[in-house]
Amino acid sequence: MDDFAKKLGKNIKMMRVFKDQSQAELSFKSGLDQSYLSRVEKGTVNVTVIKLCAIAKALECELTELLPEIDKTSAL
Amino acid sequence: MDDFAKKLGKNIKMMRVFKDQSQAELSFKSGLDQSYLSRVEKGTVNVTVIKLCAIAKALECELTELLPEIDKTSAL
Repeated sequence: MDDFAKKLGKNIKMMRVFKDQSQAELSFKSGLDQSYLSRVEKGTVNVTVIKLCAIAKALECELTELLPEIDKTSAL
Repeated sequence: MDDFAKKLGKNIKMMRVFKDQSQAELSFKSGLDQSYLSRVEKGTVNVTVIKLCAIAKALECELTELLPEIDKTSAL
């Protein structure tokens, strides 16, 4: 599994939980399919920038808050 | 053409020019195919977060410096 995608997915899930949103709510707010979000959170898809912007907007946080550290990411 | 992808592509090209890098150099440094980079700069592809991180790293800039303003982006 791609290290970067896994870390990004975990950050998204942690932020969603922090904001007390269910996946269904995040799906509704972001306009993204819930099954897609589930795969993003598991790190099994490489999310596009535009979709990550929609997720950040729906979670009312900065996109950078969701990004894993670039340097410590091995598989880039 | 997707407004967000076009703005992102323009930001990447402006940064590349600012850093005096050719597309070939950016391709070599980022490990991304030059024809792919050309499409990214034209805004005809939705780049993934992990590839944008590789581009930012190759341009020695922050990923956020490349992102278009989220709010003013109509087509999200």
